[in-house]
Amino acid sequence: MTKYLIRAMVLPMTGPDDFYENGEIAVVGDSIVFVGERGSAPPDFVPDRIFDLKNDVVMPGLINTHTHAAMTMLRGYADDMPLMPWLEEKVWPFEARMNSEDMYWGSALALCEMIRSGTTTMVDMYIKEEETARAVLETGTRALLSRGMTGLDRKAASVALQENIELFNNYHDAGQGRLKVLLGPHAPYTCPGEFLQTVKQEADRLGAGIHIHVAETKAELATIKERYGTTPLRWLEDQGLFGGHLIAAHCVYLDEGELDILKQYKIGVAHNAESNMKLNSGTALIPRMLEKGISVGLGTDGASSNNDLDMFGEMRSASFQQKLVGSPEDLKAYEVLDMATNGGARVTGLKKLGRLAPGYKADLISIDFEQPHFYPRFSIPSHLVYCARGGDVRTVMVDGKIIMEDRRLLTLDERRICLEVEKRAKRIAFKVFNEN
Amino acid sequence: MTKYLIRAMVLPMTGPDDFYENGEIAVVGDSIVFVGERGSAPPDFVPDRIFDLKNDVVMPGLINTHTHAAMTMLRGYADDMPLMPWLEEKVWPFEARMNSEDMYWGSALALCEMIRSGTTTMVDMYIKEEETARAVLETGTRALLSRGMTGLDRKAASVALQENIELFNNYHDAGQGRLKVLLGPHAPYTCPGEFLQTVKQEADRLGAGIHIHVAETKAELATIKERYGTTPLRWLEDQGLFGGHLIAAHCVYLDEGELDILKQYKIGVAHNAESNMKLNSGTALIPRMLEKGISVGLGTDGASSNNDLDMFGEMRSASFQQKLVGSPEDLKAYEVLDMATNGGARVTGLKKLGRLAPGYKADLISIDFEQPHFYPRFSIPSHLVYCARGGDVRTVMVDGKIIMEDRRLLTLDERRICLEVEKRAKRIAFKVFNEN
Repeated sequence: MTKYLIRAMVLPMTGPDDFYENGEIAVVGDSIVFVGERGSAPPDFVPDRIFDLKNDVVMPGLINTHTHAAMTMLRGYADDMPLMPWLEEKVWPFEARMNSEDMYWGSALALCEMIRSGTTTMVDMYIKEEETARAVLETGTRALLSRGMTGLDRKAASVALQENIELFNNYHDAGQGRLKVLLGPHAPYTCPGEFLQTVKQEADRLGAGIHIHVAETKAELATIKERYGTTPLRWLEDQGLFGGHLIAAHCVYLDEGELDILKQYKIGVAHNAESNMKLNSGTALIPRMLEKGISVGLGTDGASSNNDLDMFGEMRSASFQQKLVGSPEDLKAYEVLDMATNGGARVTGLKKLGRLAPGYKADLISIDFEQPHFYPRFSIPSHLVYCARGGDVRTVMVDGKIIMEDRRLLTLDERRICLEVEKRAKRIAFKVFNEN
Repeated sequence: MTKYLIRAMVLPMTGPDDFYENGEIAVVGDSIVFVGERGSAPPDFVPDRIFDLKNDVVMPGLINTHTHAAMTMLRGYADDMPLMPWLEEKVWPFEARMNSEDMYWGSALALCEMIRSGTTTMVDMYIKEEETARAVLETGTRALLSRGMTGLDRKAASVALQENIELFNNYHDAGQGRLKVLLGPHAPYTCPGEFLQTVKQEADRLGAGIHIHVAETKAELATIKERYGTTPLRWLEDQGLFGGHLIAAHCVYLDEGELDILKQYKIGVAHNAESNMKLNSGTALIPRMLEKGISVGLGTDGASSNNDLDMFGEMRSASFQQKLVGSPEDLKAYEVLDMATNGGARVTGLKKLGRLAPGYKADLISIDFEQPHFYPRFSIPSHLVYCARGGDVRTVMVDGKIIMEDRRLLTLDERRICLEVEKRAKRIAFKVFNEN
C-alpha cells in the first residue's frame, strides 16, 4: 500500500479550535493513519512520497449532498425566468433530447468542475445514472447515485424503478466502495403514494437509501395541500417512506413539528442555498435545524439552476442567506465548514468521511493560501468560507489517490470533455429550437 | 503613443446583444480607437504589440463604487458578530492603532486583490487616504478617494475636513487624471447638520463630489427618526447636501418618495449586496431603482465586512439577493454586468468608462474561459455573473497600460505586501488584546 506524508497547514475539522499551522498527515492506502504537528508522525512511518504543501491549507474533501451532474449540459441555457416556464419551455424539452452519451459527457464535465473546486463526494440524481457511474469510476471520486423517478405515468415509473434497481445491482459498492446507489423518487408532487410505497419496499429489500426532493417551493406546498390536505413531509411520512437512510433535498418549507419528524427518523437534509435564492424558492430554517441536532449537508443543485458546482461559493451563500433573514451571528464560518464536511458525512451515511483523523478515509483537498485575499491570516475558517473560491483548490486526494495535483486533473481529459459538451449541448439546443 | 491590438471574445457592454466571438480591440495611448470583428480594424492601424487572447472574454474593467481599501488589514479579524459589538469591541480599537504605513500596506493589499479580480476603478473612503492615493498611483489603477469624516467631535471634524481638502489639493486629477478626490462625510447619524453644511460649501468651492453612507441599517433609520423626526435621505436634503455629484452608499431603507429624491438630484447609488447580507443590514430596492432610471453601481464595502473585494462574487450575490426577496426575473445577468460597468461609470461620473467603444478609456480585463465552469457557452453574460470568480481574470489594462498579464501583477510586489500586512495586522491585534 502506498504511503504518503503531506506537510501543510492542516484544518482537520475535528473541532473549532483544531488547527496545525505546521501540520502533517500520514496516509496508508485509502486511509489516514496520523494527523498532527510536523515531525510528530510515528518514527517507523516511511512514506513513498512527501507532499510539501507549506503554503496550502489541507482540509477534508467537500461533500456535495444534492446535485444533478449531467445538467452541466444546460448551464446558461436559460436563466432569470420564472420556475414553470423555465422547466416547461427550456429544461424539459432539452432533457427529452439528451441521449446516454450526452449524460456521460455532462457528468464528466461536472466532475472536472467539482474536483477543481474541492468536492470529492457528490449525491446525484438524474436520468441515465449508469453513465454518471461510469464517469465517477473513471474519475476516482466518490458518489451516491440515484435514478430520478417520477411516478405520474405508471409505465414510465415502473421502467424507471427497474433502471434504479439495475443501477443498484450493477454499481452499489463499486470502485472499492466509492460508489453507493440510492433510490431516487423525485418529489411528493411527482410521485403518487402507491409508487412511493413500492419504492420503499424495494429500498428495504435491497438495503438501499432514498434520495428525494422535499418542500422546495411554495407551489409544492400548495399542490400537496390541495391534493392531500397536508404538508409534503407529513404526507411522505403517511406513505411510510421514512425509517431507513433518507436524504431530503431542499426542505425549505417545514414547520417546527416537521423538524421533529426529520429528527425522529434521522433524515438528512441537503441544503441548496444558491439554488433556493436564484429560483426564488425561499430560505430553509438551517440554524434551527442545527440547534435541534438534525444532520444538514450542503448541495449545489444542478448547474442549470445555480449555475456552478462550486461548494466554496455555496458555503458563502449559505451563510449570507441566513444572516440576511436572521442575524449576523447565524451560520458562523466554522458551522458552515462543518456542514460541508462532517454534515455531509452524516447525511450520506459515509461515517469515515468529513474529517482528517486516524481511521478516516484519505479524502482531502489543499487550498493555495499564498494569495492576497487570504491575508492577513486571522482566521482560517473565516477565510475558507468568506474569501475562498473553487479555483483556489490546488491538490485533491480521494481514497488515498491523488486525482488533481497543482491544478492538473490526472484522471480526466478536460479539454476533450469541454469540447464534447460544447458540441453536444449546442446540437441539442438547435434541435429544441427547430422542433418547438 | 503605444498601440495595442487585442484579439479575443469581446463583450463590449454597449448593449445586451453586442458580442464578438472573434473580436478585436485597437488601443492607442490611453484610449480605445476600435472595437469589432477580427480583421476589421482600420488597415492603417499598425500595433506595437498584439495580444492574442483567443480563449478569453474581454470586457470593461469593473468599477467598485464603495469600499474601504485599507480595511483588508482587518480581514477575518472578527466575523459573525452583531453590528455594535463588532464595531465597538473589534473594529474601532483596531483602527485606533493603525498608523499611516499600515494604511498604505492595507491599501496596497486591497489593490493586489482588486486587480486580480478585475476591478480597475474603486471609490474609497477611509482615514489616511493620502496613503491610499500613494498606493493607487504606484499601482496604475483608477480611484475616487475620500477622507471619511465623522462630525460628532467638532475639533476632530474640522481636522478631518482640512485633511480631505488637502487630499483634494494634492491628488485630485493626479496620475494623468486617474485619481479623483471626493469629500467623505461619513453618514447622517455621525455628522451634525452644521458640519454637513460646511462640507457642502467646501465641495462647491473646490468643485468636488461627495461620498456618504445613507440609510444602511434599521438602527440608523431609528436614530434619525428620533433625532430629527424624518428619514436619513430627507434629512440630508434638508441640510442642502444635494445638487452636486454625490455617491450614496447602501441606500437600503428608502421609500418610494426617496427614490424620487435620488432621481431628482441625480444621486448615484453604490449597492453593497454582500455586506448588506453578511451584516444583516437588509435588501436595497435595486430593481425599482433601475426601473426609475436611477444610476446604480456595485460595491464590495470593506474587507472586514464582506470579506473579499471580488466584484464577480458581488455581482452573483447582488442577483441572488434580489431573486430571493423578489422573483427569479429580477436582476438578470446582463443588468448586473451593466451595473458593475456602465452603472459604475454613471455613479462615479467618469463618462469615458464602463464600455469598450471608440473614444472610451482603455480600461479592460480578460477572463480565462477555457475552464470547465464556462462550458457549454450558451450565454457569456450568464457565465460571467453566475459562474465566474475573481481568480478567472487573466489580464488587466488600465488607461492603456497592462498592469496584470497572465495573472502576474506588473506594478506591485505582491509577496512583500502580503507579508507586511501579515506582520502589521498581527502586531495591532496583539496590542488591542493587551491594552483592552
